[in-house]
Amino acid sequence: MTDMRSFLGRDILSLKDFERDEFFQVFSVADELRHYAEKRRNGDLLTSKTLLTAFYQPSTRTRLATEAAMHRLGGHVLGFSDAKMTRAGDFYQESIKDTVHMLEYYGDVIAMRHFQQGAPAEAAKWASVPVINCGDGWGEHPTQVLTDLYTTWKHFGTLDGLRVLCVGDMRMRTMHSILYAMSQFDMEGLVVCPPEMSLLPEFKAELDERNVMYREVESVEKCIAEADVIYMEPVVQADYTKSRDEAHDDKGQTPAAYKVTRQLLRDKAKRTSIILHSLPRMDELPPDVDATRHARYWFEAFNGVAMRMALLSLVLGAVE
Amino acid sequence: MTDMRSFLGRDILSLKDFERDEFFQVFSVADELRHYAEKRRNGDLLTSKTLLTAFYQPSTRTRLATEAAMHRLGGHVLGFSDAKMTRAGDFYQESIKDTVHMLEYYGDVIAMRHFQQGAPAEAAKWASVPVINCGDGWGEHPTQVLTDLYTTWKHFGTLDGLRVLCVGDMRMRTMHSILYAMSQFDMEGLVVCPPEMSLLPEFKAELDERNVMYREVESVEKCIAEADVIYMEPVVQADYTKSRDEAHDDKGQTPAAYKVTRQLLRDKAKRTSIILHSLPRMDELPPDVDATRHARYWFEAFNGVAMRMALLSLVLGAVE
Amino acid sequence: MTDMRSFLGRDILSLKDFERDEFFQVFSVADELRHYAEKRRNGDLLTSKTLLTAFYQPSTRTRLATEAAMHRLGGHVLGFSDAKMTRAGDFYQESIKDTVHMLEYYGDVIAMRHFQQGAPAEAAKWASVPVINCGDGWGEHPTQVLTDLYTTWKHFGTLDGLRVLCVGDMRMRTMHSILYAMSQFDMEGLVVCPPEMSLLPEFKAELDERNVMYREVESVEKCIAEADVIYMEPVVQADYTKSRDEAHDDKGQTPAAYKVTRQLLRDKAKRTSIILHSLPRMDELPPDVDATRHARYWFEAFNGVAMRMALLSLVLGAVE
Repeated sequence: MTDMRSFLGRDILSLKDFERDEFFQVFSVADELRHYAEKRRNGDLLTSKTLLTAFYQPSTRTRLATEAAMHRLGGHVLGFSDAKMTRAGDFYQESIKDTVHMLEYYGDVIAMRHFQQGAPAEAAKWASVPVINCGDGWGEHPTQVLTDLYTTWKHFGTLDGLRVLCVGDMRMRTMHSILYAMSQFDMEGLVVCPPEMSLLPEFKAELDERNVMYREVESVEKCIAEADVIYMEPVVQADYTKSRDEAHDDKGQTPAAYKVTRQLLRDKAKRTSIILHSLPRMDELPPDVDATRHARYWFEAFNGVAMRMALLSLVLGAVE
Repeated sequence: MTDMRSFLGRDILSLKDFERDEFFQVFSVADELRHYAEKRRNGDLLTSKTLLTAFYQPSTRTRLATEAAMHRLGGHVLGFSDAKMTRAGDFYQESIKDTVHMLEYYGDVIAMRHFQQGAPAEAAKWASVPVINCGDGWGEHPTQVLTDLYTTWKHFGTLDGLRVLCVGDMRMRTMHSILYAMSQFDMEGLVVCPPEMSLLPEFKAELDERNVMYREVESVEKCIAEADVIYMEPVVQADYTKSRDEAHDDKGQTPAAYKVTRQLLRDKAKRTSIILHSLPRMDELPPDVDATRHARYWFEAFNGVAMRMALLSLVLGAVE
Repeated sequence: MTDMRSFLGRDILSLKDFERDEFFQVFSVADELRHYAEKRRNGDLLTSKTLLTAFYQPSTRTRLATEAAMHRLGGHVLGFSDAKMTRAGDFYQESIKDTVHMLEYYGDVIAMRHFQQGAPAEAAKWASVPVINCGDGWGEHPTQVLTDLYTTWKHFGTLDGLRVLCVGDMRMRTMHSILYAMSQFDMEGLVVCPPEMSLLPEFKAELDERNVMYREVESVEKCIAEADVIYMEPVVQADYTKSRDEAHDDKGQTPAAYKVTRQLLRDKAKRTSIILHSLPRMDELPPDVDATRHARYWFEAFNGVAMRMALLSLVLGAVE
């Protein structure tokens, strides 16, 4: 047995890098710091530090949750929220190395979202400050999934022995991160998605190598009775080029196999199961589910701030 | 007589919600706090609080005045300034309820501008934190009009007995808010606008129900002699799709009936009357008016910061 | 001899306004404050002050360096980073005077980038707070060039007796600022550019009037042996309307006469010479130069924060 690695100065790039004990360490720091958010009082743990948010793709939840966390700890924040707002916008015009050898002087930690998979990892190679991956293309989304697992852990008191029904587009980064994370726990994945959105072969090979337990199932209905956690992403993507009326029509397009309805929950779900969704949603999760015992997505949103407080404090060495 | 309602935790959505004494309470807090802005020194009344600005339409003055107020009190600020920068951008893609059950965790008060009338009120229904309406479509613009009335009150020492000449597009939100507010004072409105921009019938019905005293007049010239306050909005809208030269041509398009010129002021206006304009202006208010005794729009701009300091401090419970 | 002018309340508009001693005063304050950036600890020199960034053109480096500097000193920051985000966006729709009589109430110093030459100077005419020119069209870029000269001074311990090879588009604002600055030192410029990008006649006349010593040379190769400082800008501009592949092709387009390669440096450059580049680069400066003794552009990026800390502290009166 070795001592635990320190989080000081560490990059948060992939949940492949997290070991079992490290998940619990992060959860415990989130528990320690969440009172600032609950009591709505900014503290002063990070007043002497600056967060740089480098978002090459628009984002609401992830960017604001990360910035809110920094503010809650008294810290400073600057950055950009859209590639169009920066001359460094086009990845192919300026190398990540060149970009990082500028950004690293403007803040003490870099939170990066990028449209290209691997960009935060490339940034971390060159940066003198920690880099937090806030979503990289089809890659990973570790801070979101740490939030999800933290929410799960707070509900069940454990992550072991749980079955997680993952429904949505399996090529999405959250799905990658949560399946990687399962390798560190006694968890089983139940994977439900349209055929054209299924796990890629190379990703399946990786899961096998890591002994991640999962089964592919045809529909939510066929496995919801087994699920402790129902982890959702849309299968219909919002089309922002459409007009109001056209967009409204899209809302009815999710096939029944990939929806979680109030009826289905009442008929088949475990009483103790919880639903997580990083939102925004299309029609895979109708609003009347919000009032069921299962809905945990807004608590999840709140936990997103506590989780980023924990990560920022850890990599900046303000807590251990 | 009841005691005054507390502002703690209260939403600022409409001036319909304000009672006479509450206007004066807000003015008095603005007076108490304005020295920070005058002396150009940020204080620490709100260091432990975070403002979230959710601007679904671009804005310069309102957004920056609100943020500046928060900074002046030592507070933290985050948010977005354009719907395009957020996946929650399209109102029809994500419900206000869903959006609010995220934003409420990122700040302690939400300042919202929205292209759709009623959106801030809908947000306030769901939010656990106060919502400040920073302009909602054709609806209202309470923080702007509180600023205007505060500026008027500082000049005249009272709001009673004043005649307010409102000139511009009567469908605009500032016009709605100021006419609602008049119900609480012994004020009379003189309404001047092109026929196609006149007060909507349903809005007139509301004013009648509230016993707001106002008259519709054909031109500024016909009533400026009676006016204590000249309250202006453009009737020609800036067309941002036009080129420099084309835009320049638009500047000459405001009909004389809806303009306030130096000549007109000299010939007909009361010596004590003041001009308010939330800016930017087209040619309804030529720049040579700036040097007259009547111009108060820059003082109004300064007061905009003091007013937002008052509102933020009140709803966050930092003052009473 | 007069005493030195104070920087308190002063605008930073042009390096034409700087006298020899003032350069050294600014360098010395940068030296005094740089430890905050080196130790990565925000101080509290400017906690009671607010910086307003008014960027009418997108910028990454200049905006973020300026904001980072303010945060490093504990200050507050607000503003806009794109003209499209503000109704004041179109210069021709609202006068600079009108815009400034709003912005001046939102912050204690205004950092402005503008697409139109002279806009910051026009703003400074009306503003009650100092205005810092962060680049104005084809005009000047004083904070960048102060950074460059500071970097040079830190390397050589002096600015006198140095030859500066300026290569790139001579119509660019950095080139203007650095050539103006040379009038205050015993420096000589070696100017290399494509004929269509050469110094404009009116600008040459100004340099002559100021007794700036410079020679126009045909290629980098012909004068690199004489150069102490190699000061670079691209001659091929990034075309952000192009696709990835098309953009990639542009990268090979810089003629050899305006490139600085590793080979050329090894064969001809002074051992002690340094290369400055404000970045981003096209292919005029290949990445393999980064590992030579000459590269100073990342140190220059770091110094950019220290320089803005100095300027903000000086004009706000926090240091002398």
